[in-house]
Amino acid sequence: MFKTELCDLLGIEYPIIQGGMVWVSFHELCAAVSEAGGLGMLAGGSMMPDELKEQIRLVREKTRKPFGVNIPILYPHSGDLVDVCVEEGVSVVSTSAGNPKKFTGRMQEAGIKVMHVSPSVTLATKAEAAGVDVVVAEGIEAGGHDGFEEITTMSLVPQVVDKVKVPVVAAGGIADSRGFIAAMALGARGVQIGTRFAATHEAQGHERFKEAIVRATDSGTVITGRALGPTRCIRNQLTEEILAAEGKGATRDQLLELIGFGRSKRATLEGDVETGTIYCGQIAGLIGGLKSVAQVIEEIVGGAGPVLDRLRGATGR
Amino acid sequence: MFKTELCDLLGIEYPIIQGGMVWVSFHELCAAVSEAGGLGMLAGGSMMPDELKEQIRLVREKTRKPFGVNIPILYPHSGDLVDVCVEEGVSVVSTSAGNPKKFTGRMQEAGIKVMHVSPSVTLATKAEAAGVDVVVAEGIEAGGHDGFEEITTMSLVPQVVDKVKVPVVAAGGIADSRGFIAAMALGARGVQIGTRFAATHEAQGHERFKEAIVRATDSGTVITGRALGPTRCIRNQLTEEILAAEGKGATRDQLLELIGFGRSKRATLEGDVETGTIYCGQIAGLIGGLKSVAQVIEEIVGGAGPVLDRLRGATGR
Repeated sequence: MFKTELCDLLGIEYPIIQGGMVWVSFHELCAAVSEAGGLGMLAGGSMMPDELKEQIRLVREKTRKPFGVNIPILYPHSGDLVDVCVEEGVSVVSTSAGNPKKFTGRMQEAGIKVMHVSPSVTLATKAEAAGVDVVVAEGIEAGGHDGFEEITTMSLVPQVVDKVKVPVVAAGGIADSRGFIAAMALGARGVQIGTRFAATHEAQGHERFKEAIVRATDSGTVITGRALGPTRCIRNQLTEEILAAEGKGATRDQLLELIGFGRSKRATLEGDVETGTIYCGQIAGLIGGLKSVAQVIEEIVGGAGPVLDRLRGATGR
Repeated sequence: MFKTELCDLLGIEYPIIQGGMVWVSFHELCAAVSEAGGLGMLAGGSMMPDELKEQIRLVREKTRKPFGVNIPILYPHSGDLVDVCVEEGVSVVSTSAGNPKKFTGRMQEAGIKVMHVSPSVTLATKAEAAGVDVVVAEGIEAGGHDGFEEITTMSLVPQVVDKVKVPVVAAGGIADSRGFIAAMALGARGVQIGTRFAATHEAQGHERFKEAIVRATDSGTVITGRALGPTRCIRNQLTEEILAAEGKGATRDQLLELIGFGRSKRATLEGDVETGTIYCGQIAGLIGGLKSVAQVIEEIVGGAGPVLDRLRGATGR
């Protein structure tokens, strides 16, 4: 076992949250994580309200355990996604990319626990001031949209822990029991894991998308869009084109025109891993193959004891 | 106590190495760290051979314990610095910024233990192939010169540990017992700490340089020179100018002309913290004031037990 106050707060067995990854986190993945004792999450960021409602029902066919939904606040239809979560009585919502004041009170009145993804101390303290129940401190090693300040998990987590009173969940760079215990040592009360769960049988996604994660090495991802909003993805033809344009001083409009829309769906669902965007964390190099969700969670929790025994051995106690 | 095989290998009490920081790591700091049970290091990168010889003698007036020297391999006089270390019988040399094949054999024949600073798995395995005794896996959160791949400590350390057989030391983002235990959980056998030791009474450096570190928040540092060789330093007038030029697509030559020479000395020794370069790690936000070296080391080692007790509590064992 491995239990923290986050488990009691969210009604879960292990303090392991699966990140709500666009095009990846659908009902199979979400239900499998919750059934295995973690907190599964649906990616509201790639669903319209009706689809989210349907996905919530599909999750409930597979598990009676708590699960959550991620909602990017800046989306035009984010309020409608919040409405669905309230109507359907979802246990937990994680919000990101926007002002947490907007929906937190309304969701908490409906009994929803609210987590907010925060890439800096400033944004973490703002989230706490907005009343969220949990702060997710996410480092620049995480896949997908990251913070402008590019603060790493190792630097960010203890600094956030020192500045907020609510439980802190660490995200970015965690894929096994070593990263899990490291995050806990930094003061986190739980972890959010994305990329490792994207490389599971239950994740939605094209075979070539999952293969790209498995093949990626420690230096296989790159940050693009530093001027627009940094995103971490696997190096490919598209990232080379974006980086070349950025190196030549491309304007914001030129970059937006080059990138266009639908690039993540193109890679993740359609399997075009050269001109699509493959969101992926820097820890991908640790991922040697696809696994089942249950195996991922069992290995993280089961490996925690031996990691702690090794550390205790060093203290001679 | 906290003891790993690194302690036996280097003849030190605690697996804590002080980074060899240019203009900062002179005899007072180096001797104080070694006397307190860690491994002090002189910064060969800001010394000519005669000065290094003198500094080694000054360290030996203060301590009989082992200490080390950092040598950037690419420097024109690096071979002369190696000669000094061999002649003076220095225990440990850490090399960085260059090919570890160049000096490793010669130093080891003279009984010197060689560590090589490696910011990626590829460079770590090359260092091992060159025969080094220890690999220092340094993440992008570290101050000063960082790797082109910008891999974070959390991502890098376990990936390096899985690929090399020699002991791995974690560097970047570590300033207290939480970071120390986190690094050990990731599989490191020791830590290298820079910025926290720069903010000590014994470090060489202008009052305004040390104040800048203490004042910096989690988002107070920035990477500049991505095209030349990334360096992390505190945001100031100079970094704004460099970032503006980079954003406009400045060429390598234009950037080199803008930056010029002697910027680090200007900030560190002369106290010009606006047009000088203040090398500093991202963990600076955790540093609330200057301390003595002995206090820093006592707090890290003394705090390790409570961190482990908290983790063990979560397992219910």
